[in-house]
Amino acid sequence: MSDSSGSVLLTDWYQLTMLQAYFDEGMAETAVFECFVRSLPPGRDFLIAAGLEQLLQYVETLRFTPLELDWLAGQHRFKPAFLDYLRDFRFCGDIDAMPEGTLFYPNEPILRVTAPIAQAQLIESRLINLVHFQTVVASKAVRCALAAPGKRLVDFGFRRTHGGEAGLMAARACYLAGYDGTATVQAGMRFGIPVFGTMAHSYVEAHATEVEAFEHFARSQPDNVVLLIDTYDTEAAARKVAALAPRLAQQGIRIGSVRLDSGDLAAHARAVRAILDAAGQQGIGIFCSGNLDEDELRCLLAAGAPIDGFGVGTRVDTACDSPYLDCVYKLQEYAGTARRKRSTGKATWPGRKQVYRCYAADGRFDHDVVALLDEPPPAGEPLLQSCMRQGQRVGAAVTLAQSRDHVAAQLRRLPATRPYRVEISPALQDLAQQLDREEH
Amino acid sequence: MSDSSGSVLLTDWYQLTMLQAYFDEGMAETAVFECFVRSLPPGRDFLIAAGLEQLLQYVETLRFTPLELDWLAGQHRFKPAFLDYLRDFRFCGDIDAMPEGTLFYPNEPILRVTAPIAQAQLIESRLINLVHFQTVVASKAVRCALAAPGKRLVDFGFRRTHGGEAGLMAARACYLAGYDGTATVQAGMRFGIPVFGTMAHSYVEAHATEVEAFEHFARSQPDNVVLLIDTYDTEAAARKVAALAPRLAQQGIRIGSVRLDSGDLAAHARAVRAILDAAGQQGIGIFCSGNLDEDELRCLLAAGAPIDGFGVGTRVDTACDSPYLDCVYKLQEYAGTARRKRSTGKATWPGRKQVYRCYAADGRFDHDVVALLDEPPPAGEPLLQSCMRQGQRVGAAVTLAQSRDHVAAQLRRLPATRPYRVEISPALQDLAQQLDREEH
Repeated sequence: MSDSSGSVLLTDWYQLTMLQAYFDEGMAETAVFECFVRSLPPGRDFLIAAGLEQLLQYVETLRFTPLELDWLAGQHRFKPAFLDYLRDFRFCGDIDAMPEGTLFYPNEPILRVTAPIAQAQLIESRLINLVHFQTVVASKAVRCALAAPGKRLVDFGFRRTHGGEAGLMAARACYLAGYDGTATVQAGMRFGIPVFGTMAHSYVEAHATEVEAFEHFARSQPDNVVLLIDTYDTEAAARKVAALAPRLAQQGIRIGSVRLDSGDLAAHARAVRAILDAAGQQGIGIFCSGNLDEDELRCLLAAGAPIDGFGVGTRVDTACDSPYLDCVYKLQEYAGTARRKRSTGKATWPGRKQVYRCYAADGRFDHDVVALLDEPPPAGEPLLQSCMRQGQRVGAAVTLAQSRDHVAAQLRRLPATRPYRVEISPALQDLAQQLDREEH
Repeated sequence: MSDSSGSVLLTDWYQLTMLQAYFDEGMAETAVFECFVRSLPPGRDFLIAAGLEQLLQYVETLRFTPLELDWLAGQHRFKPAFLDYLRDFRFCGDIDAMPEGTLFYPNEPILRVTAPIAQAQLIESRLINLVHFQTVVASKAVRCALAAPGKRLVDFGFRRTHGGEAGLMAARACYLAGYDGTATVQAGMRFGIPVFGTMAHSYVEAHATEVEAFEHFARSQPDNVVLLIDTYDTEAAARKVAALAPRLAQQGIRIGSVRLDSGDLAAHARAVRAILDAAGQQGIGIFCSGNLDEDELRCLLAAGAPIDGFGVGTRVDTACDSPYLDCVYKLQEYAGTARRKRSTGKATWPGRKQVYRCYAADGRFDHDVVALLDEPPPAGEPLLQSCMRQGQRVGAAVTLAQSRDHVAAQLRRLPATRPYRVEISPALQDLAQQLDREEH
């Protein structure tokens, strides 16, 4: 597909019709929207905020191109004066957000946009689209990192992610969450993520024999020999590797590891380990892949399977047990007045808010407080930080490596008990009750 | 994110290291790969092939850019002669595929690539990435079309799809499957899909009263007035709409419909219908959204809820019950010899194959036969058709509208019994057994 990842038309039609209405009415006061997740899906104790960098890039470069304006004009739904106004449309608002990699909980704003209402409104769809998905994947991938400490974890999921951008963002989110790298080449080029690879069954099958395939591959990639051994018979292939290793060693080529991709991985890993060890090849590692997720990793390691690393793909990159979060972006204030949606099951906490994290004496998370920005700040570390003012970035640039370290540091401070307590400040509760008494 | 949707580096690292090895070994014979899905996920009786158009665009334009080659050179893993070879790398192979919109079943090849092995190998990752996701969504979305015949169905899912490309491809796959349109503006511009929209809660909240919001919006978009009525109190808002409608009618503005987005949709729809009807507003339709999927649609309609259309989003666009398929692309022949992977649980049917669909006397699907391409063709309609020869498209261009009609026509011929029978021809079974006896 040709490019559209930066297109302003990656939005919902109603954003444009609402913009036309705001334009017609002359409604241009400041709106405050906040982005949050309403609830934790089953199997998640916390979530990880991700995707802010892509969001900031999007709002910085947001423009209607002449081609897009022509197309919109051709829909005969917008007035010429409004289309003229779109021609010069820019995002000039403020954004405050939790830094990428921050652990968060339901109903905590992770991002606040303060801007003239049309600007804050238009970006809603793509804002959620960018922040939601990386948050979904990082919050799943971190569970693999927690399940397999000290093991190499590589994102193998590109092919079954939901499109090209999904593949890139999944690689980024997995690395943020603690993976060692990805197989997706473009993610390496784009984000500087370490790239790993092995070989495919097709490579083995294209050769007359497995040994020939192994030997040719090792000669071609002598610095990174990972041999896939489950194409025909895993243990038979392991014996071939054990016999080949000394021969390659004489040529100065070391086999790094073998990969298992099917069958009972724990049983195969044990059998292969025994074969390699018996041949004096303790240095060859065992790398596993195939339908893995945090539960499978935990089972394999609990069973004592001698596995050194994992290629984790589809199940994490699609977050298959919870492929979406109830992630929303809601108007909390307009023209200086707090606003509250009261729809059944979807009521929001009104006003501009801040999240304060309180730590226990041992340094672990104790609880969070969601409070109004303008009330006397409660104890705790404020989590939302300014990152954009009047459309310009503020604060020091944050690298992906720094965000990854931020995740790792918080994982050492995870609370010992669950569920985690998130308090709503009394002033915020009062404001909500007060708004509920108003007529609309 | 800046563009990368056409990048050749949207691939796995091992494709490049295998290409280097093929290059070193002088392996350039013709390979035949086929793409298929190993099994139906729960809750699917059939799948719908989709994404072929995007795949053909990708292979037609596949190039290594100077920037990409520089980056690869900087990884110090590839030899200069190989990088030179990549500079002129093009896809010059053949592709045969089921036309988009074709219903298919497990283990049936939906696409065959015949090309020098490096070309067929390199495209694997992005090929699956492009074909898999649209197939996932079309196969889910068609269930909504079947559950709600005659109702307007609009894709509302962009914001929670897995990235921008996912949003566009989901909109396309839903339309292919039978939806009436999408809310995603770029999908309208790109694919010519009809675009629909309503209004958001934020629009209502930004106004002092609901009536003011409704009236302003109607004036601004007089040709397409859909009013969202669940921001505060659904039935109260319905009464306001009933009172507003005659006033707007005097100005020549007709309210098209109201939208419900929360609570017990069936109960609210009934109450709202009664309020509108009592006010003589039988012409105002009821449109519903909010966490819908085929099961919810079926329940609402079975309960007789007076709903005229649905905005279906997240649950279908992420295919939340089965967000991925076991979709693979496997080497079936190299240098004129059939190949077969034998990994536990992942064995493949070898050789170049064709799928034949056999119909019953009443025109319905009866069963399919998977056979070798070079055996005497069994009865039935061959489903894979040539679409590319030596890198050039062949055959008439197929429009998205034609593919959508193709889906609709097949839905009228769905088999009455399940599971559907897919036969493997005796010659194909013989070939597989013969390969299993070979040593590797």
